[in-house]
Parts: sequence; C-alpha cells; structure tokens
Amino acid sequence: MTTSPMDNSPPVRLALSMGDPTGIGPEIICKAIAHLRSSGWLETHAHLTLFADAPLMHFTADELGLPNLFDDQASPHVRLVHTTVPVTGDQRPGALAAAGRISHRCVERAIDAVIGEENGDSPGDQAAQTKPTAMPEQLCEAIVTAPISKEAWHAAGIDYPGHTELLAERFDSPRSAMLFMGPTLRVILVTIHIPLRDVPRKVNPARVLDAIELGNAACLALGVKQPRIAVAGINPHAGENRLFGSEDAELILPAVQRAQERGLNVTGPLPGDTVFLAAAKGHHDLVVAMYHDQGLIPVKLLDRAHAVNVTVGLKHQGKPVVRTSPAHGTANDIAGKNIADATSMIESITLATSMVQRNRQHA
Amino acid sequence: MTTSPMDNSPPVRLALSMGDPTGIGPEIICKAIAHLRSSGWLETHAHLTLFADAPLMHFTADELGLPNLFDDQASPHVRLVHTTVPVTGDQRPGALAAAGRISHRCVERAIDAVIGEENGDSPGDQAAQTKPTAMPEQLCEAIVTAPISKEAWHAAGIDYPGHTELLAERFDSPRSAMLFMGPTLRVILVTIHIPLRDVPRKVNPARVLDAIELGNAACLALGVKQPRIAVAGINPHAGENRLFGSEDAELILPAVQRAQERGLNVTGPLPGDTVFLAAAKGHHDLVVAMYHDQGLIPVKLLDRAHAVNVTVGLKHQGKPVVRTSPAHGTANDIAGKNIADATSMIESITLATSMVQRNRQHA
Repeated sequence: MTTSPMDNSPPVRLALSMGDPTGIGPEIICKAIAHLRSSGWLETHAHLTLFADAPLMHFTADELGLPNLFDDQASPHVRLVHTTVPVTGDQRPGALAAAGRISHRCVERAIDAVIGEENGDSPGDQAAQTKPTAMPEQLCEAIVTAPISKEAWHAAGIDYPGHTELLAERFDSPRSAMLFMGPTLRVILVTIHIPLRDVPRKVNPARVLDAIELGNAACLALGVKQPRIAVAGINPHAGENRLFGSEDAELILPAVQRAQERGLNVTGPLPGDTVFLAAAKGHHDLVVAMYHDQGLIPVKLLDRAHAVNVTVGLKHQGKPVVRTSPAHGTANDIAGKNIADATSMIESITLATSMVQRNRQHA
Repeated sequence: MTTSPMDNSPPVRLALSMGDPTGIGPEIICKAIAHLRSSGWLETHAHLTLFADAPLMHFTADELGLPNLFDDQASPHVRLVHTTVPVTGDQRPGALAAAGRISHRCVERAIDAVIGEENGDSPGDQAAQTKPTAMPEQLCEAIVTAPISKEAWHAAGIDYPGHTELLAERFDSPRSAMLFMGPTLRVILVTIHIPLRDVPRKVNPARVLDAIELGNAACLALGVKQPRIAVAGINPHAGENRLFGSEDAELILPAVQRAQERGLNVTGPLPGDTVFLAAAKGHHDLVVAMYHDQGLIPVKLLDRAHAVNVTVGLKHQGKPVVRTSPAHGTANDIAGKNIADATSMIESITLATSMVQRNRQHA
C-alpha cells in the first residue's frame, strides 16, 4: 500500500536515529541505505541525516561488506552525524543504561534536526552545532527511528514508555497517536503502553474521536481518498448489546456518531475478533483499535516484517511532522548475525518520504 | 491438524443441536451431513442424532437440493429428533425470543442424550422418550452444536453468555474452558464472555494454571504428544518487566512456574502481540490467551472458516465429554442463500469423533 513519492519534487530531508546499539538497528539502517542507494531511489528522493555512534556504524557496515557506505563520495545523500552522550556525574552505571542513554540521545538529536533547536540537556555533540546556522530549508522534515529498548531507557532513568510519548512531548502535540501501516492493514491505537486494567477508563469519547480524526488525516496523507474507517469495540463482541459491558455503547458509539456528524465515513463499534479480517479483505481502509494487543496482534500476524509504525498528529509551528519506524523491536537475539530483515526500515524511509511529499502538496 | 479417527473402532455416537433457526445452522448441518455421507466417512465413523425443528431441517435440505437427507434408507447413520418447546404461560413474546427458546432446547436435548437424563424443565418432546430405556451403549458420547444467538437467548430469558457456560453448569465441570483449534493455531482462553474491565481481576494463578492443565490434556486428546505450551501476557509486551502493569509477573508467572514444577512444557508470559506468530510458525502447540479478543483475533484471522471451538474439561460420571462447535456465529445476513461454508461444521464433527476415539483408547 506504500505509494511512490512524486517525481520532480526536491529530495525529502529525513533525520534517522540509530536505535539501541545492542539491537539490530545499526544493521537494518546499513542494509536499508545500501538497498535504497543501489536501487537509485535515494539519489532522487531523499537526503538522510543519521544520528548514531559513528564507529559502531562504520564497524557494522564493514561487517556487512559495505565498507564505503558512509563515504561522502559513495553516499553523497547520506550524512552520518556522530552522536555522543556527555559524561555527567549522575549517570547510572551499567551497559544497559549506557545503551539507553545513547539511543535516547540519537532520538533527541533527530528531533532537534527537525525543530532547529538544541534540546536543553544536550550540549557538545555535532548535531548541536547545526543550530546557530540552521535555516528552514536545512531542517529535516521527517524522523525515522530504529528500535530502542524501553528497558534500557528505563535503566538510564529515561522514563518514557517509548518513542511515541517522547515525540508527543517534544512536539507539544496533545492529539498524537500511533498508527501501523502494512501491506494488508492500517491500524491506529486509542491507548498504547498502559496496563490492560487501565484501558477501560482511558478510553473515552474524546480520545476515540481524536483517533478517528487523526487516522482519517493520516489516511489522506497516505494517499487514501475518502477513508473508510472501522472502530473496534473494547469488550467481547463489541459488548453484544451491553451483555458483556457497557463501554462500547456508552464511550465508543458516541464518538463514532460525532465523527459521522462531521462527515467522516466511520462505522462501529464492531467486534474486535472479526473487524480486522474484514479490513484485511478490503472492507475498511483503517481500523481504530482500543488497546495495544488488540491492534498489534493482527498487524504482526498479517504484515510481519513489512509493518511500519507511524506517529500521527505531530506538529511543529503548525505544520505536520512525519515520524515513522519499523514496527518490530530491537531483536537483540539476532543482532550482529547479518540475518536481520531490513524490509520494515526500508518501508519506514520510503513511507516517510511519500508522506512529506504529499504534505508539501497540501501545504 | 485434525487427525483421522482410528479404523476398527465402533462408530462414535454424536448428538448435534440445530443452533439458531434464523441463522446458517440448519444449512451447514445439512451440507456437512451430505458431505460426510457422500465421502463415505459417516458410514464407518459416526452415528449422528440431530436435535432440531424437523420441518425446518426438511425444508432446508429440500432447498439445498438434498431431498432425502433425513430418510432412514438414504442416511441410516443420521437420526433427526424433532425438538419442540412446550408452551407455557410465561413465555416471552416475539420472534427473537422464540428463536432463542428452540435453539436452547436443542442444546438441552443434546446434553440429555449424553447424560441419559431428562432436564427438569423439558417434558414432552421425542428426545425425552429415550430416557426410560437409555442404556450406556445408547447414550451419545459427544456434542456438536451449531451457532446460537446470545441475543435471542437473552430475549428468551435464558441468561447464559453462551454454550460454554451452559455446558459447564449441566456437566458440573468447574474447570472447563474454551479452546479453539484450527489448521494453524490452538488457543485456550482463561476468560471468555466478560467485560474487558473485569479481565485483570478474573485472571489469577489458579485460573491460569487450570487453563494450562486443561489445554495440555486437550492437546493429548487431540493427538499432540508432549505439548509445548506458551502463555500470553495480559499487558502490552507482557508487562515489559512491570513497566506496563504487574499482573504478568504476579499472576501469570507463578502459574507458569507451578505448571513447570508439575512437569509440563510451558513458557511465559510472552508478549501477546508476537506469541501467536511464533505459534503459527510452529514454535508452540498451544497458546493460553487471557481474554476473548486476545485469543479470537488470531484464530479468526489465520484459521477463518476452519476453526473449531472445543469445550475442554467437561465430565460426566468421571469420564470426559467432548463438545465441539464451529467457531463462527449465526451469520444471519447470509442465512437461506445457500452460500454458507460448512467447513467448520464438518471439522467440528470429525474432530469430536477423533477425540472420542482417542479417549476410548485411554479409558
């Protein structure tokens, strides 16, 4: 379902973050760059600025048999910005915390590259040097992140459940949401990284309506005209007429009705155990899922290595900011073995590019 | 994954219930009988006793071009028992309630045919007449139910969420559970038809351990030697080391450890969004799911028309009672159009038969 970016448009400026250094992030970034370079896509479509531990990236490229991947001459459309973490007295010890600090730092630098500002807590690395002279035409337009380890972030004292929450805060975007896009399904989540017991009280008509509207806008940016949106129920059989809980009738249905009044093509709440099959058959362009596993189980089953995580609703100075990421995790168990599949990273880069192109047209 | 019943074993005596008369139950029963008869399977493997509205079954068979389906000569291995609902003064009016009463009655009669007793509230129909003379060798050994409408049951004042709960009560089986079996996945549920908000407090170590042990026993009855069982977590990423809730560590892990101590091959809790993919790839023989949509989303996505619902843990006088059912619903929207897919009903009949055969061997 990934549409090709339009030709004749200037290259899109993407900021990439390395992800967890002990995971497959460095490997899939190298593989994706090599693939997009050799196919000729990179030359005409994008400029990549990669925030990463430079020695690790060079080592990884060498291991993969891509020795000149980051040379200016061989890859003029890729800029590797060596990113380090300044040593401070209160740093937590341990390899896990160290991995968390560097992957967090790379994300922050990628955000800085879009915002054109240096984050307060981060003096001293190359990325920050771009600040004083950054003109709007030099700023990055989208962010592509490789997987981080939430556990490593936690060990480092960085208490965000994941990228999505950090991005929402840095971009001051109260209505952001997580959307998954694959060859078969598009799914947006109303709640994400919270305990299941908190889901029923976090789901309310305003949040469901936000997800519907953000999902609708994202579908338009993804090239879907007049998106047909299905909203999943929260209880078994969407409550089966209140036999199995009242939230579907009281919290979800009002949001669906409000969205219909606003002219959106929305149905629901529909039973969670059948709505994804209907979407996979082509009856819906987007499914609004109420919680993490409800949305992620079908995405990972049907779209496996191809799914892309899109943060929707991010804005900077009133303009949309695109952020994409592979939908898989750090996969530490296969890191360093040259067997990681870069498909989702490639899709993340090309999808972000096409979304920026489409947003430019509508700007 | 359905294994063939053993040859040289006497036919298995199955009780079938019609299901909701306004749904596809009558159609898929007729199609299944015709298929199993013409393939020669029925003749050697099973005797079917069908509890149903006889005129409706004859009408349906005629409409499907199967005019002699219930003739003794054409189908000597099928007995159609006309089942009616005695008229009482307190019956609720309306077509929905009437449909609920008859489908409920058919299930009760099918249970009676296994137990050899007449249910207290049901005088007067043919099934009851079997009672006085029923010898153990005449009793049915398993039940196959066509889909009922929970809404119709509710309208009729029959307040069970579904078959599973009614069966558990009639058979006095406190440890019963719902298992889904398809070509790709086997999934057993810890909780079923309850609001999502009640799931976290219904999941406790004893219930999870019950599901593990019942699932293990069912896998053995299904012909899986030394079942490899995976237990799904309840929170996102199985709680990610308590970052997203403590239930995985406090309620599920102890049950997994207890089951391991008892010699079962169990792992978990594993993240819900990836465990089903691992099972589909063959890494697990059974997944223990914590709640309805977590288990049913993958089953319906991957095994669609082929999934069979198995009630595990039912016993009568100390011996296991098999009950199977198609995993789909009444599908009223396509009833009467001769387009319903009987695959799951056929699988339900053959799976129940092979489970009885295997239980006979172990008796």
